Amino acid sequence: MAPVFLWEFLMSASPSYSSFDFEGPVFRAHEGGKLGVHATQPLRDRDDLSLLYTPGVADVCRAIAEDPSLSARFTARRNTVAVITDGTAVLGLGDIGPLAAMPVMEGKAILFKHFGGIDAVPVCMETGSVDEIVDAVARIAPSYGGINLEDISAPRCFEIEAQLKERLDIPVFHDDQHGTAIVVLAGLLNAARVVDRSLADLRVVVAGAGAAGVAVTGLLQRAGVRDVVVCDSRGIISPSRADLTGHKHRIAASTNPRGLSGQLATALVDADVYIGVSGGTVPEADVARMAPRSIIFALANPDPEVHPDVAHRHAAVVATGRSDFPNQINNVLAFPGIFRGALDSGAAQITEAMKIAAAEAIAAMVPEPTADEIVPSVFAPGVAETVAAAVARLA
Amino acid sequence: MAPVFLWEFLMSASPSYSSFDFEGPVFRAHEGGKLGVHATQPLRDRDDLSLLYTPGVADVCRAIAEDPSLSARFTARRNTVAVITDGTAVLGLGDIGPLAAMPVMEGKAILFKHFGGIDAVPVCMETGSVDEIVDAVARIAPSYGGINLEDISAPRCFEIEAQLKERLDIPVFHDDQHGTAIVVLAGLLNAARVVDRSLADLRVVVAGAGAAGVAVTGLLQRAGVRDVVVCDSRGIISPSRADLTGHKHRIAASTNPRGLSGQLATALVDADVYIGVSGGTVPEADVARMAPRSIIFALANPDPEVHPDVAHRHAAVVATGRSDFPNQINNVLAFPGIFRGALDSGAAQITEAMKIAAAEAIAAMVPEPTADEIVPSVFAPGVAETVAAAVARLA
Repeated sequence: MAPVFLWEFLMSASPSYSSFDFEGPVFRAHEGGKLGVHATQPLRDRDDLSLLYTPGVADVCRAIAEDPSLSARFTARRNTVAVITDGTAVLGLGDIGPLAAMPVMEGKAILFKHFGGIDAVPVCMETGSVDEIVDAVARIAPSYGGINLEDISAPRCFEIEAQLKERLDIPVFHDDQHGTAIVVLAGLLNAARVVDRSLADLRVVVAGAGAAGVAVTGLLQRAGVRDVVVCDSRGIISPSRADLTGHKHRIAASTNPRGLSGQLATALVDADVYIGVSGGTVPEADVARMAPRSIIFALANPDPEVHPDVAHRHAAVVATGRSDFPNQINNVLAFPGIFRGALDSGAAQITEAMKIAAAEAIAAMVPEPTADEIVPSVFAPGVAETVAAAVARLA
Repeated sequence: MAPVFLWEFLMSASPSYSSFDFEGPVFRAHEGGKLGVHATQPLRDRDDLSLLYTPGVADVCRAIAEDPSLSARFTARRNTVAVITDGTAVLGLGDIGPLAAMPVMEGKAILFKHFGGIDAVPVCMETGSVDEIVDAVARIAPSYGGINLEDISAPRCFEIEAQLKERLDIPVFHDDQHGTAIVVLAGLLNAARVVDRSLADLRVVVAGAGAAGVAVTGLLQRAGVRDVVVCDSRGIISPSRADLTGHKHRIAASTNPRGLSGQLATALVDADVYIGVSGGTVPEADVARMAPRSIIFALANPDPEVHPDVAHRHAAVVATGRSDFPNQINNVLAFPGIFRGALDSGAAQITEAMKIAAAEAIAAMVPEPTADEIVPSVFAPGVAETVAAAVARLA
């Protein structure tokens, strides 16, 4: 038995290390990192050097010192977006810190380039107070044409984004909030067409009151949804609850028009739409109590709150966050075009009107939506360009 | 006369704007910026997406969360250096701010890539107190494998670099100080061979007590020079001066062994070496008082403190910072190899021993130095590789 005990000892000393396959395709694709930086101009000889560096560069510096707006023309800023995180809410992994967050930010930067033609650079920072994060981001902001906040924990992310929007004159966009909200709205616009309903008449339940839940709720309301009930892990958010803090007070004040209280199961009775951005599992019995021809967006990854097979037994339209089922609600449909449009038009902010226009543009990429196609495929050509044009029109 | 007055009015309203040739080669080379970001892995389809982004990326994140050292293998950090400035001392332009500093930092990033194969990203930050700059750099440091400080005004730059070296476990290198010092030492090693002198016997005058002057002085002393006299704009720095602050007290305590006082002209009498990192002009009469077979490094750009034609009338070896004269003392001979060596060896710091080794490696690239060739050409093949190997050996 000795070898077995030795093996157990080694396993306990490094409990899950052995589960990583460093020679497998994922780690091989990450070897050495996934991003590089390159010059867009040739450097062949002293003449090139004197154009791109000293002494030639001095004139460009002086011109920008006189007229700072020229930096949008003569520096890489014009096409550069910082993907900024403090690593406190990475994917479903939670607070794993800035070093471990880097592979996600690099992946995001690849998506920015591939879909939006944008040069995105990861900035993974040590976490801190809201003020410390805001100060650090504001201090480095002159380097960039836009700022994509990513995977910052709620409720800090709301205040961080609000303060940065106030202080900076470049677009600041927390993708976990607004990217999700835009694509959810796009999907809901087309799902409502499939079931022949108006947004204003839908009873919507949003399960999850974090970054995505709050943003989805706000954008759906601005787009015309009147009856939204938001649930967190303790149930329906309503003014009658004594345990609410901060942003949940604001949710309580602006949602739940029928004054429901209780658990998610109560909210789902006769609901037309379920939007899960929370994780966990919804029992099929609760799903069964939704209204006829309902719409289910079960967006938790990798495990949807309602498995599509279960959802289809009760709902007319089903969407998830996964690529292996129809109707993938994926932020990549939004953020490359959002920033492309903002950079190209010199927009100082991503406004609510731009977000709704982006959602409408995404929805319009599917001219004849069906239960199995309410949003375009991630790789459908032209999505980012169409979103960018819609955003730029409003700049 | 009216048109002339109108023209004068327009000129005074925008005094030097008209001097920029936005259609000329320099501005055309800067149109849209000089840097881009690219993926090092192909993104062709959903399978690639699931390797480079969700869900595949989650395993890489978890592995790094368990063992942070893996970030040097599986993220772009391993080859990424931040070129960080607050724009307070840019080239000869002074405090022009972060936006106007960007073209220089982009140029620097191009040099990092071309000569060192390093992915460098500019970070141009709003200036602030020493503590504010240190806090901001330390907060974003997890994103990078090394930090190149650039064009930060003295004496703040000394304290900023010292505090960052204390706080961070990645190389922090203020190139205006140490890059200059390394290449000056390389040049002086070979110049001393040309005039058949030992470093320990040379009388050296350093004109300039800013970032470059301080670092040159320190590195020459560590390399064996015993008699260094440093001058600032008010003359020889010595303990007898009442106007010294901060780092100049330290200079006074560690230099000027013969206790000279007075102006630069006094220091130059019988001096073997003049190293100008100050700007301004040295009168020929003062140059004439140097010792026979002297060495003149007049490094101000674009106007050397002593024009090479003048210098050659009195000195045996003459170097400048310019590419159109022999013996160009250019930092690009040092920093790409310094960081290449540090990144490849996982060095946590650039030590004094590494700087001297780098200088010796650069000097050794010219096996038979002459008065007209004491350092290799900027484009000489193999310089960065040789410097990198010398640095890595000491890591």
